[in-house]
Amino acid sequence: MDSTEKDAKVKQSSRRRFLTQGAALAGLTAVGGIRSARGQKSESRVPDERSYSSFYGVPSHFESTVREMAPNQYPHMLSTLTPQQDSVGIITPSGLHFLNLRNHDAPPSIDPQQHRLLIHGLVDRPLIFTLEELKRLPSVSRIHFIECRGNTIWPGGNHSGFRTVQETHGKASCSEWTGVLVSTLLREAGVQKEGTWIIAEGADAGHHVKSTPMEMAMDDFMVAYGQNGEAVRPEQGYPMRMIAPGSVGIFNVKYLRRIKVVDQPYMLAAENTYADLRPNLQGKRLWFNYYWQPKSVITRPSGGQQLPRPGFYEITGLAWSGGGAIRKVEVSTDGGQTWKEARLQDPVHRKAFSRFFLDWTWDGQEAVLQSRCTDEQGDVQKSMDEFAELWGYKPGSIDINTNSGAMVNVIQPWKVDREGRVENAFLI
Amino acid sequence: MDSTEKDAKVKQSSRRRFLTQGAALAGLTAVGGIRSARGQKSESRVPDERSYSSFYGVPSHFESTVREMAPNQYPHMLSTLTPQQDSVGIITPSGLHFLNLRNHDAPPSIDPQQHRLLIHGLVDRPLIFTLEELKRLPSVSRIHFIECRGNTIWPGGNHSGFRTVQETHGKASCSEWTGVLVSTLLREAGVQKEGTWIIAEGADAGHHVKSTPMEMAMDDFMVAYGQNGEAVRPEQGYPMRMIAPGSVGIFNVKYLRRIKVVDQPYMLAAENTYADLRPNLQGKRLWFNYYWQPKSVITRPSGGQQLPRPGFYEITGLAWSGGGAIRKVEVSTDGGQTWKEARLQDPVHRKAFSRFFLDWTWDGQEAVLQSRCTDEQGDVQKSMDEFAELWGYKPGSIDINTNSGAMVNVIQPWKVDREGRVENAFLI
Repeated sequence: MDSTEKDAKVKQSSRRRFLTQGAALAGLTAVGGIRSARGQKSESRVPDERSYSSFYGVPSHFESTVREMAPNQYPHMLSTLTPQQDSVGIITPSGLHFLNLRNHDAPPSIDPQQHRLLIHGLVDRPLIFTLEELKRLPSVSRIHFIECRGNTIWPGGNHSGFRTVQETHGKASCSEWTGVLVSTLLREAGVQKEGTWIIAEGADAGHHVKSTPMEMAMDDFMVAYGQNGEAVRPEQGYPMRMIAPGSVGIFNVKYLRRIKVVDQPYMLAAENTYADLRPNLQGKRLWFNYYWQPKSVITRPSGGQQLPRPGFYEITGLAWSGGGAIRKVEVSTDGGQTWKEARLQDPVHRKAFSRFFLDWTWDGQEAVLQSRCTDEQGDVQKSMDEFAELWGYKPGSIDINTNSGAMVNVIQPWKVDREGRVENAFLI
Repeated sequence: MDSTEKDAKVKQSSRRRFLTQGAALAGLTAVGGIRSARGQKSESRVPDERSYSSFYGVPSHFESTVREMAPNQYPHMLSTLTPQQDSVGIITPSGLHFLNLRNHDAPPSIDPQQHRLLIHGLVDRPLIFTLEELKRLPSVSRIHFIECRGNTIWPGGNHSGFRTVQETHGKASCSEWTGVLVSTLLREAGVQKEGTWIIAEGADAGHHVKSTPMEMAMDDFMVAYGQNGEAVRPEQGYPMRMIAPGSVGIFNVKYLRRIKVVDQPYMLAAENTYADLRPNLQGKRLWFNYYWQPKSVITRPSGGQQLPRPGFYEITGLAWSGGGAIRKVEVSTDGGQTWKEARLQDPVHRKAFSRFFLDWTWDGQEAVLQSRCTDEQGDVQKSMDEFAELWGYKPGSIDINTNSGAMVNVIQPWKVDREGRVENAFLI
């Protein structure tokens, strides 16, 4: 937490110094002066009226943890990033969920009483639902991540501006989503034999659409109207959106108004197919690259943070995979020479953020911190070199604004220098 | 969702009627007019600027789901209630977490850089932590409910105003909490042999304190600085609070500034011991009544809601227990004559909300809906009669303003009349 904001109203009557040394677990300091600590009454009688509403609460005015604009913005899009460096647990607060806005438009204002969801195409019984009707159907609540295809530093791309974990990994967020499984809806509609694909379409101005194989949709796709215990936020698709667990963000169609069952992928003009090129495919493009490979990042300590002094620190971060549950996270504090298995937050959810933890005592020397995860399918997160080889990247040759790139899941190194400054080792 | 707010800016160009009958699963309607549904573009091009901030997002301006004041307020306290009727999943949005404010004060404004946590008393090494130092220690993230002792209708009390599930059960909420286990802190401090209790004290103006046996504190108590992925909200104890999983709300000391290890419960003047009287204790009061017994309530349909017509509905609600994990929830739709086992949201967390679901087809006749849960210890939620007998309540004899009462966990009946109106059956 970078609480730099000052509240002039707060009386700073207590100027005593309680700690002469950090309370590092490796050598906790016994401190006298208990009377002075008990006397700390300075702030307690000042009401926090700026952070209080009896109807709907807000964060403390001391908190400066907010989304920020992405570096290297695409010209046609505005992207704001989740502040992963201050994240705790596995839930991203809805107010801090990352966001991509085409044409820099605000999200559409959709009256939930006017909105309809249409299920049609190669089905026996076309169906239309109001939001209230959808809410009467059997529902599920599941924790899933959503990650933009453009998240994380691109091999060979322009790395300037990617200093913090918000900048390198801020286009991924995780929520408890509530809604109706697409399989429930399609079984009611009765999918015809030829119905092997679906097209999902949003009610936003751009009418975003996306084709998906029936098998994926029937597995665990969800039409979600709830996010973290309340209605989906307008920025996230209010009043309803597709959740395509583990898939690239663009499959999670917001403002969902239509699911059409079709017999092939239609490659509509409005679809970003993002065809990916891999050298061993001999020039043929990988049109359908759906699921995120295992990916993790240390969120604390991370780029831009400062370790005040040598001693005990908990290293913590997030791991996730489109392949299912995270099985293992390993952490290296010596630049990849040795790895230790990290503790995982219990329980582990499929296709969701997993929080990991490792105890570490910093000796005051240079250190490079990295995390590497393995998912339930046995797939392992890749190093930059392994990733570049797989996708045929040549360092320095990729222009982030013209190359469609692939879904980057490289191991992120953070370098700690002798002054305790933490930097993105890719920029050094 | 009661979206009564109107947005004058929204063009309501689409006046076509898509549905002539509800999409009840028991008889879903095949609907023509697909062209008209595809044509619904009315709201999509109007940006929702009122619900959008690039830095920190907010709910849709169509949403009217907010906290409301509790009925039958205590004179010395302001209570606002979580809108359970619109809840989904198991996480309560931090902005909708219930709230008790003594003297109607706003929460205190506490500068996190000035705040200190003191561990002292019968320990070998007294310790003081800043927030940043606390965050360096090994942490946990766990989902737990907090419930005010005064939640839910009191047997024999004044029931007027308890019409909705927000009013009957709104003083309970559930969050993902992140922080350091008290056992971690106390092991570092070194608890002395005589240290059998702790006293936790807040930095609020009233210096709220609470005594707890060492065994409970060492089990799973946590000093939390994180709530639902960000800093604890000021209303919930910013910058840090005690989490006492499964215990009555008052043990979860907000604005925590001190944990003192002591050799007995001190019954300090500021403690609300809430001594409970039970007939079989022969006049001796039950001073220490910590844990919530198993409790559940149907949130949808619930009091004040309206079923538009006969047909399929999903019944859903919340169950929780201080005794650990919920093992089973049963639902009756015939006033308690028969019970069916409900489906539980997976995974089930200990001492947390569990979401349950049951398919139901309403035949248009009068119905009384109830839920009853069982926890991992085999304890079963009580009927009003069973509860009144256990605690010696005589219907009509209790004044909510003078009797300390007990922690009510009675089965809540909702009555559906032939017009589909849902009412609190205790008020009929």
